[in-house]
This record gives sequence, C-alpha cells and structure tokens, in this order.
Amino acid sequence: MLKEDLINSGAIKFGDFVLTSGKRSGYYIDIKSAYTDPKILDEIGLEISGMVKSGKIAGMELGSVPILVSVSIKTKRPFVIIRKDDLKHGTRKRYIGSINLNEEIDIIDDVATTGGSIMKAAEIIRNNGGIVKRAICVVDREEGAAEMLKENNIELYSIIKASELR
Amino acid sequence: MLKEDLINSGAIKFGDFVLTSGKRSGYYIDIKSAYTDPKILDEIGLEISGMVKSGKIAGMELGSVPILVSVSIKTKRPFVIIRKDDLKHGTRKRYIGSINLNEEIDIIDDVATTGGSIMKAAEIIRNNGGIVKRAICVVDREEGAAEMLKENNIELYSIIKASELR
Repeated sequence: MLKEDLINSGAIKFGDFVLTSGKRSGYYIDIKSAYTDPKILDEIGLEISGMVKSGKIAGMELGSVPILVSVSIKTKRPFVIIRKDDLKHGTRKRYIGSINLNEEIDIIDDVATTGGSIMKAAEIIRNNGGIVKRAICVVDREEGAAEMLKENNIELYSIIKASELR
Repeated sequence: MLKEDLINSGAIKFGDFVLTSGKRSGYYIDIKSAYTDPKILDEIGLEISGMVKSGKIAGMELGSVPILVSVSIKTKRPFVIIRKDDLKHGTRKRYIGSINLNEEIDIIDDVATTGGSIMKAAEIIRNNGGIVKRAICVVDREEGAAEMLKENNIELYSIIKASELR
C-alpha cells in the first residue's frame, strides 16, 4: 500500500541514477519531498507507529523530524530531536527534548544506508543515559546498516527494503 | 489556556534571566523543550491552525518544524521546510517541499524576536515564485518583528505577546 503510494507520489523513482557516492542505482528515493504531503506523511506515520515499542522516540535533524512528529502525535509519545554536529555552536545541547537515565528510546529515520546517522543518534542517547535497542526506518537500502547496527545491539526495522524495489 | 500550559510545562519561566544578546529579561521562553510533549504540541498546533489562511504553510529549519508538521496534519495542508544557510552544501536546494508560481504560503515560527528568521523564509519563498502575506508565531517577543514584517507586506499573528507575560 505505502510502497505504491510512495511510487505514485514520486518519492521512489525507477530509472538509471548516479548517486552522490558515484554509484549507479536502478531506483532513486526522495522521501523528504513526498512527506510534505500530509496524506503521505500520515501513511508513513501509521506504519512506523505500529513498530514502535519504547515509551519515547528520537530522530536525527532534519530529515527524520516530520516522521518523528507524526509518530509522536499518533502514539502520544514524546520525542527527542538529535542535532547534527555543529562546530559553530560547540557548547549547545546536542538534542531538543529530554533523555532520562535508563529510559529506552526507539530511533526513527527516513532512509537507512550505512546506518551511520542512526548510530550517531544512538551514541548521543546512550552517552546521555538512555537505552537504544531498536531503530525504525521507512526505506532500508540494505547497504550494511542492519549488520552494523546489530553489532552495536540495535535491531533495524523498515517498511520497505531495497531488494523489494529492484 | 495554552499560556497556562506553557508556564506549567516550563516553556515559559519567570525570574531574572540574561539572554544570549546580553539583555536582561523577566521571563524566559523555551518552546522547543515544551513541544516535544505531544499534548503541548497538540495545543500549539490547534491554536496556530485556527489562524492559517493560505493553502500551504512553511517554516524555517529547525525550531518551527514540529509545529509546522502538527499544523499540516491538523489542517491537511502541505508544508515547506526552508533550510538554514549552509555554505558546505552551497548548491543544495534551499527548501524541502514544493513552491508553485503565485502560490500563497503562510509562514509559521515558534518565537518571533526581530523577525529576521521569518523575513529570511519569506525572501526564499518569494524568490521562488511564492506569495507571503502572513506569518504566525507562538510567542511574539514584541522586539520589532511585527513592524519590520509589516514594512515588507507581512502581517504577524501570535498566540501570546511578551506584554502579556510581564
């Protein structure tokens, strides 16, 4: 259902694409343009909401924030926004919201590629006393994220896997 | 109603504060921490939604985004996120979402001080063919934003004015 809507909305395009990494790809994903339509965001939020287990959710600035807020509203769970590294504001708190000691938090993201962004968010949550066991993304590109996160005790869940798009 | 909730949630604190500008203030506003609670975000979203007139809404990265998404979900209007200036990614599109020619867009923000952030968003929307006549914020600090925006043909609306907090 959501997969077809993402294709119809232009969020997933098929063709011959050169990614910023230089790799070629048979599909191109642009969740960020699609989710500015509240109908699409609602569907994404609904599917992600069904996979949330912890009492709080977190996401990395900026791409995951609309999904995070949609899931927060649907599940009535508070959210944490992890800020990107920003040398200009070195002393600034690295997140918006609260992280309590030994509180379990699920991480939400739009697209998982290598898992670097999710891992960064997990490190900041863990360094501030929180517990991370699960991450949920819309699209898993299957380029190593699940394996890398598993080594770091995080289970990755997704709505759509790249292998389903080929 | 919302004003009391913002005070109770700690979003608005009274006391003797030194702001980053060096000025002293009898109150301190931290909407960002408060709105990570979905109950507070829901109330903010509800009040802002009642003031939206255009068919699309926009906000500046990052602070306004949760409010923007809440209003988008409530009013079923698509949203545009204006990115902060980022020299590292000079060629990147300055916004997420779409701006159509002669399309009217309302700007949403958490706090208006001098109005600089709202004006920046308005310039980017106008440079991309959109029309901006209205901006809506949660708190208007009444430090010149309304006057400056009016000179630029933007009417500023707010839920709470600083003078109501003194």
